[in-house]
Amino acid sequence: MREFEIIESIRTANAALGTTVVIPPGDDLGMIEIADGVSVLSGVDQLVGGVHLAADAPAEDHGRKVVNRSLSDVAAMAAVPVGFILSATLPRELMTNEGWAERFADAAREASSRFDAPVFGGDVATHGRTGGVFVASATVLAVPDPHAGGRVVLRGGAQVGDIVCVSGCFGGSLRPDGRGHHLDFLPRVEFALELHRTLGTRLHSMIDVSDGLAADAAHIGRESSVSVVLRAEDVPRRGSSTAVQALTDGEDYELCFTVSPDGSLPEALSGVPITPIGIIESGDGMRITDEGVALELERDGWEHSG
Amino acid sequence: MREFEIIESIRTANAALGTTVVIPPGDDLGMIEIADGVSVLSGVDQLVGGVHLAADAPAEDHGRKVVNRSLSDVAAMAAVPVGFILSATLPRELMTNEGWAERFADAAREASSRFDAPVFGGDVATHGRTGGVFVASATVLAVPDPHAGGRVVLRGGAQVGDIVCVSGCFGGSLRPDGRGHHLDFLPRVEFALELHRTLGTRLHSMIDVSDGLAADAAHIGRESSVSVVLRAEDVPRRGSSTAVQALTDGEDYELCFTVSPDGSLPEALSGVPITPIGIIESGDGMRITDEGVALELERDGWEHSG
Repeated sequence: MREFEIIESIRTANAALGTTVVIPPGDDLGMIEIADGVSVLSGVDQLVGGVHLAADAPAEDHGRKVVNRSLSDVAAMAAVPVGFILSATLPRELMTNEGWAERFADAAREASSRFDAPVFGGDVATHGRTGGVFVASATVLAVPDPHAGGRVVLRGGAQVGDIVCVSGCFGGSLRPDGRGHHLDFLPRVEFALELHRTLGTRLHSMIDVSDGLAADAAHIGRESSVSVVLRAEDVPRRGSSTAVQALTDGEDYELCFTVSPDGSLPEALSGVPITPIGIIESGDGMRITDEGVALELERDGWEHSG
Repeated sequence: MREFEIIESIRTANAALGTTVVIPPGDDLGMIEIADGVSVLSGVDQLVGGVHLAADAPAEDHGRKVVNRSLSDVAAMAAVPVGFILSATLPRELMTNEGWAERFADAAREASSRFDAPVFGGDVATHGRTGGVFVASATVLAVPDPHAGGRVVLRGGAQVGDIVCVSGCFGGSLRPDGRGHHLDFLPRVEFALELHRTLGTRLHSMIDVSDGLAADAAHIGRESSVSVVLRAEDVPRRGSSTAVQALTDGEDYELCFTVSPDGSLPEALSGVPITPIGIIESGDGMRITDEGVALELERDGWEHSG
């Protein structure tokens, strides 16, 4: 898988990063110290027409989704978004389509202003081709939550004995008609902040689910050097999704997190249900059971065993 | 001009920005307050294959140029770069071209590390098409220079009586073979910091020259509500460039700035020559003379009068 190889090569280069980099590439966001004791988190998500949504989806869908994907990364760190920098390269027909770029930008601004994170810079370009792709990027700036002592939550903090939990439900985010939850999700920023303020340092690790619950939970395991054990039957499903769809569809933009077992766990926060779906064990890799029977997935590096 | 219209519509929307936005979109970088008394500057530049450089240019050229363009924006504010977030969307043939993405990223990291501004996050995607465009973006984070009292230099600060100056020389940045200065320029970050530390608040306004000296100097005039008067014969030229080429070619990535006349002006800083090329008058618009004769340019809104 090429994208993974490229990311690995970037990771290798992290060794050369200076001392100001507090969190290097590889988590949902990176973090850099910009003044004594002041750090800023940042990361970028791209939106490619025809890949991340239908090429003929309305401008508003493009603008909202590119911002909301980045906000989901902020939620994954339990950080506070503070601003956005947007870029967009348009094909000729969208550049000359009256109002398209403005509607894109308006939707992006509306999505970001919901979390008081204004778009304070951007760049518009065209590649000049007709029928070429639309590519946008949203770079989010965020800060550690002062109400949580300035701590952020990483992928790599899971500990043996942790309870693996999720917010919300999974599967079927992309409907056959191309629309669905992946276009109208609400990033879990407020939920994540409340979760972190409630659990404090018991909240050991967190990731947002974009690739698929199994694949993203596996990231926590890999970054934490632990084994993730999930109970497929406990994963809350969207609509008529199957257990496998809930584990592999992706684009749920919910949070998967691990919590130390020494204390209670709220059933919901900010109106979002919390569901325990597994545990962290020593070792590595991932094990998924469905009503006690081993489940092997075809996708995301998992082989189907029949 | 569509890009200009889109930027204007973004500018109109600035009214709705919150109080944390210290410098709204419209300058080389925006600035946002992220904690009491701590602000961060940020902005993005895109690099589109086949537009900003030849589509078949080496990966290293792509990586270096996308970072250096953003560093030129940092120089224009006399700010200190602290980090980069990169994104790239690759066509299929570059995604499968062994090492291309890595060489792109390596070159970007090398260019950024020259100014101690590490790449601390990024995203790689593919649009899946063969022969489709390559689109990259570099979002730079910067801070005001603590050695200059935390002040940054805007486009809008020019005052009547200011001397208009430039760093370096102009014209012919893009050679007929596609190569040239636009691929190997050194962003004027160190020069700008030294200029600001030397002149202090006498340095009233600044912009980097990407669109062309006449067009970018006109931005200073518009943002400052003053008239810019340039002497074409005084503009230093690269190689065999004509006066008109020096004023309109663009991609010089030099700085154009205005300085109050009450004091001396260094002839060079950081090894970069400083040349006075005009003055700021009251009024609006721009006037260019060549040995005392009015010069009217064909490009950038200027008409040639024969």
